Amino acid sequence: MLQTDYTVLERIQNTADVKTLTADELEQLCDEIRQYLLQTVSKTGGHLASNLGVVELTVALHRSFSLPHDQIVWDVGHQCYTHKLLTGRREGFAQLRQENGVAGFPRPNESECDAFVTGHSSTSVSAANGMAKAKTLTGDDGYVVAVIGDGALTGGLAYEGLSNAGRSKDRLIVILNDNRMSISTNVGFVARHLAVLRARPRYLQWKNRTARVLRHIPLLGKPIYKALLHTKLSLKRLLYKNSSWFEQMGYYYLGPVDGHNLTALQNAMQTARDITGPVLLHVQTVKGKGYPFAEKFPDKFHGIAPFNVETGETAAGNGSFSATFGETMCRLAAEDDRVCAITAAMTGGTGLTAFAEQYHKRCFDVGIAEEHAVTFASGLAKNNALPVFAVYSTFLQRSYDQILNDTALNSTHIVLAIDRAGAVPADGETHQGVFDVPFLKTIPRVTIFSPTTYDELSLRLRQAIYDVDGVVAVRYPKGGEWALPFDYKPDYASYTVWDKPSAKAAVISYGRLFANVAKAAQDKDVTLVKLNKIFPLEQELVELLKSYDTVLFAEECSEEGSIAQALGECLLQNGFKGHYLRRGIAAVPTTSTAERALETARLDVASISEWIQEALYE
Amino acid sequence: MLQTDYTVLERIQNTADVKTLTADELEQLCDEIRQYLLQTVSKTGGHLASNLGVVELTVALHRSFSLPHDQIVWDVGHQCYTHKLLTGRREGFAQLRQENGVAGFPRPNESECDAFVTGHSSTSVSAANGMAKAKTLTGDDGYVVAVIGDGALTGGLAYEGLSNAGRSKDRLIVILNDNRMSISTNVGFVARHLAVLRARPRYLQWKNRTARVLRHIPLLGKPIYKALLHTKLSLKRLLYKNSSWFEQMGYYYLGPVDGHNLTALQNAMQTARDITGPVLLHVQTVKGKGYPFAEKFPDKFHGIAPFNVETGETAAGNGSFSATFGETMCRLAAEDDRVCAITAAMTGGTGLTAFAEQYHKRCFDVGIAEEHAVTFASGLAKNNALPVFAVYSTFLQRSYDQILNDTALNSTHIVLAIDRAGAVPADGETHQGVFDVPFLKTIPRVTIFSPTTYDELSLRLRQAIYDVDGVVAVRYPKGGEWALPFDYKPDYASYTVWDKPSAKAAVISYGRLFANVAKAAQDKDVTLVKLNKIFPLEQELVELLKSYDTVLFAEECSEEGSIAQALGECLLQNGFKGHYLRRGIAAVPTTSTAERALETARLDVASISEWIQEALYE
Repeated sequence: MLQTDYTVLERIQNTADVKTLTADELEQLCDEIRQYLLQTVSKTGGHLASNLGVVELTVALHRSFSLPHDQIVWDVGHQCYTHKLLTGRREGFAQLRQENGVAGFPRPNESECDAFVTGHSSTSVSAANGMAKAKTLTGDDGYVVAVIGDGALTGGLAYEGLSNAGRSKDRLIVILNDNRMSISTNVGFVARHLAVLRARPRYLQWKNRTARVLRHIPLLGKPIYKALLHTKLSLKRLLYKNSSWFEQMGYYYLGPVDGHNLTALQNAMQTARDITGPVLLHVQTVKGKGYPFAEKFPDKFHGIAPFNVETGETAAGNGSFSATFGETMCRLAAEDDRVCAITAAMTGGTGLTAFAEQYHKRCFDVGIAEEHAVTFASGLAKNNALPVFAVYSTFLQRSYDQILNDTALNSTHIVLAIDRAGAVPADGETHQGVFDVPFLKTIPRVTIFSPTTYDELSLRLRQAIYDVDGVVAVRYPKGGEWALPFDYKPDYASYTVWDKPSAKAAVISYGRLFANVAKAAQDKDVTLVKLNKIFPLEQELVELLKSYDTVLFAEECSEEGSIAQALGECLLQNGFKGHYLRRGIAAVPTTSTAERALETARLDVASISEWIQEALYE
Repeated sequence: MLQTDYTVLERIQNTADVKTLTADELEQLCDEIRQYLLQTVSKTGGHLASNLGVVELTVALHRSFSLPHDQIVWDVGHQCYTHKLLTGRREGFAQLRQENGVAGFPRPNESECDAFVTGHSSTSVSAANGMAKAKTLTGDDGYVVAVIGDGALTGGLAYEGLSNAGRSKDRLIVILNDNRMSISTNVGFVARHLAVLRARPRYLQWKNRTARVLRHIPLLGKPIYKALLHTKLSLKRLLYKNSSWFEQMGYYYLGPVDGHNLTALQNAMQTARDITGPVLLHVQTVKGKGYPFAEKFPDKFHGIAPFNVETGETAAGNGSFSATFGETMCRLAAEDDRVCAITAAMTGGTGLTAFAEQYHKRCFDVGIAEEHAVTFASGLAKNNALPVFAVYSTFLQRSYDQILNDTALNSTHIVLAIDRAGAVPADGETHQGVFDVPFLKTIPRVTIFSPTTYDELSLRLRQAIYDVDGVVAVRYPKGGEWALPFDYKPDYASYTVWDKPSAKAAVISYGRLFANVAKAAQDKDVTLVKLNKIFPLEQELVELLKSYDTVLFAEECSEEGSIAQALGECLLQNGFKGHYLRRGIAAVPTTSTAERALETARLDVASISEWIQEALYE
């Protein structure tokens, strides 16, 4: 396990080098990559299990296709580590997911071999469909390959993409990486259908043998082979016509193929290249392959903090907003059997594991289907249940229309428990929780809470469920609460004021960031205001603020559409004539920690302190 | 065709009355309803073809289920007219789609028999899934029925809903209303799969006969029948096990049933009630049934303006923004073969009919799949095509995540041609185009244009395609341009100023509404500002406005997140000390015309004139 020689891997400077290796060297390359991934991710944290599962698949792709002329779109993109190692980014890999290091997701600004930014699930086939279509329109003969996991197939966008791409005649190959898992265990139709496909006779083996034989007959072989592949009288068509969902959608279905057998993979990819029109290649992989702990607990090793390679153990956590949310939900469910929880394949991540065990009849894992989650929640609410949808801020973006039309315009009452709100560490710009406030604020009659402490989260959740109607959001960050410089006991007030009678300036904030602001304001002659219900704003607050010469607002949120922007305009409308200063997250963060993201936005304690100081002496 | 007696229909005061009718009376009821629909919709305009197609289906539903204890969720909801006629709303039907009349979509505030607000496609199964689940949790034995068309099945949300509901054990019945059409002709997998199902042997007829026979044997019949239905050895299971997509998703599949045969429909619904767990009942209907013009041109009679019943003809149109968009696209495509058009089942509505004929290789109808449309467009753009997605403002809500993550964070350049922006007549609150500006404004590096005239639309479209990068929106209203009180020749400037040197007030607007503002301002001592690029705002404009004592902003847009809100805060930040007044669309409109919506919001010429007058003498 502790190999430190990477003799083959070190020879791979770019994708073309992969094609020069012998069969033995390829096997060794895969071993070395697994070692490298283990050694790196155990130090940096990251997506381990999925990357261990696609080592051979990725090597086979680099053998079978020529990047960047051919293009690969990695669905979600968390499984791109081997791809990055093979495309000249081994050196930067020690800083995986760190600021200025190699990102954990595909990023075209790192390499022209990264064709498309991904991060959210189920986008790859739609993107690849467009890319392949554009190639056809311009006469470019390159292939576009979408690599999509079975979990991502539970998302409606994947269905839309597959259905549309299946009608095309472009050089598109969809590789279904079937590891029988989404992030948690897969649910529903996809899992059931893939089980049927896995059990089908090994037609592909026949096809591959035929292909190999025929391809070696010079001149004649390839045309005959192609004719064989396409004739409607072929064995395949007779036996399996339209027998899979994919075939009904228009794909030439190949598989299932052993995703850890390099030869089988390369043969299948060659076959896929030879077919005109869209191909679906079904590959079976083992998540966590080669690292026993990850094979046994793929969920734990999906996205993992630094861990001990020998024991598989991570450092014990210190509590988190997610954990507090989960505990509160269990308490609320015990008191009231109308309380339900919904998750989109994030039971563990959102803290709902215990709830799912104790109240499994009222816990709904809908797969990676955030749109359905919200409309389903609204349906539950329509018939008097009390649904709470626990979701990461960035993934809630997909539910905008369902929140607006199916919930707000339906006057149903649902609670959105928004985890990973604000700056999100390590995962880069595609995972930031800085847009939820701006887009939720546009929803008619929405209410938004943003607690600062664990205790406050518990209280706000109760308040959201019982004291407010319509769409109610409670948003909180990844990780733990930050210490406040004074005691704070949450109550039901919309905002809390720490008044200094002599103060001519007021400083406002909310959520986790309030801790920084409170520390920065501590020794200064300013009134401190914490928003508890951050939207809608209270007229009384506007009246209070009007009496100050200077108002500062610090916010962990994208600036356009922020609460601070709305408050500023409200102050102007109400005749405020003083100075109004605000700071938010101007650029989408790409940093490895939330603290660094806030430093970059000058929202750390020191920067805020300086900002207040300057404002006071302006 | 000119029957004016509604002897049976007049006896139906509420849903229960439908159950009292004889077979003959039911047939007559259906005839009378068709007459009534024709007479009404020919005067008011509305969704005709789809409503003519579901007359028998709706009557059978009211015979087979007891509302409101049982609940029906109408997907999209435009096919609910017969349902409204049968639930005590015949009197208000003459004012169909008028202000304070009967809405064209299900509205629970009209009747407790309308279970859920719909308007956007593909939501019904998710909502019904939640409603049925809540019934199960509370021990309510009512059924929930989702009625969904084949067109709506092309949307990813329908797939998510079907996949999740298929795992439930609740009293859920999905009725697939298969009229071989979405709004335009159906595309892709769904169409192909349904064709296969339609060709399957008429198994249901056997089942219905069995059911009828067995149900008439007292005491014994029903249990035996149920046992027969459920045994794994039944003929059905042997012959057709998992043979349809729906069965693989967990549904008991029934059908196809003739959707114009009341007896067959009622038998099938009874069978569906008797089955434990989710049922999919496949019903075949003819869109436009009973009115030859609508049967022949279901697309034209989908949503139609008032027409002549005898000739099927509508009054000739006077041009529209949609038509101008379509013409401009044809010109642009002729000049540049990178220009592509994408529509989500709205080729006609968005004005793309001619483009689709002339440039069919570059015109992509993706079905009702707005999410895919955007990610696909971004893929096209990635490989240097110039995609323009033509979409109604309200339906673009579904693409928020794809605009943000798959496009803005990918730095690809796509153009959103947003039709039906602003107040939308007749269709009610679910179809208003008043949210696009607020949600698009949160997208990093977005640019938004909002032309006032046809000529300007042509120019802005060219500008959007060639002169700006990233996500670019060009938004314009339904219908035609409004006359300006002076000549206006559009140019490439971000904003246009009609300066009065003596003026102490400036009045700002954009888009169609600028016509009202220009008229209102004409005889007043104010400077008039028209925004051409409405976002981002130019610093130079802010500097200009600072010199005025009073700034007024009139906007056809939801107020929270509006351009006026952003500008106000910007003025405050820049030291503006004057009066700032703004008016937008405070409440989501439900009026029959855009003019009435603007009157309600006090954005008609007279109200704006008064508003300016008051501001000048404040």
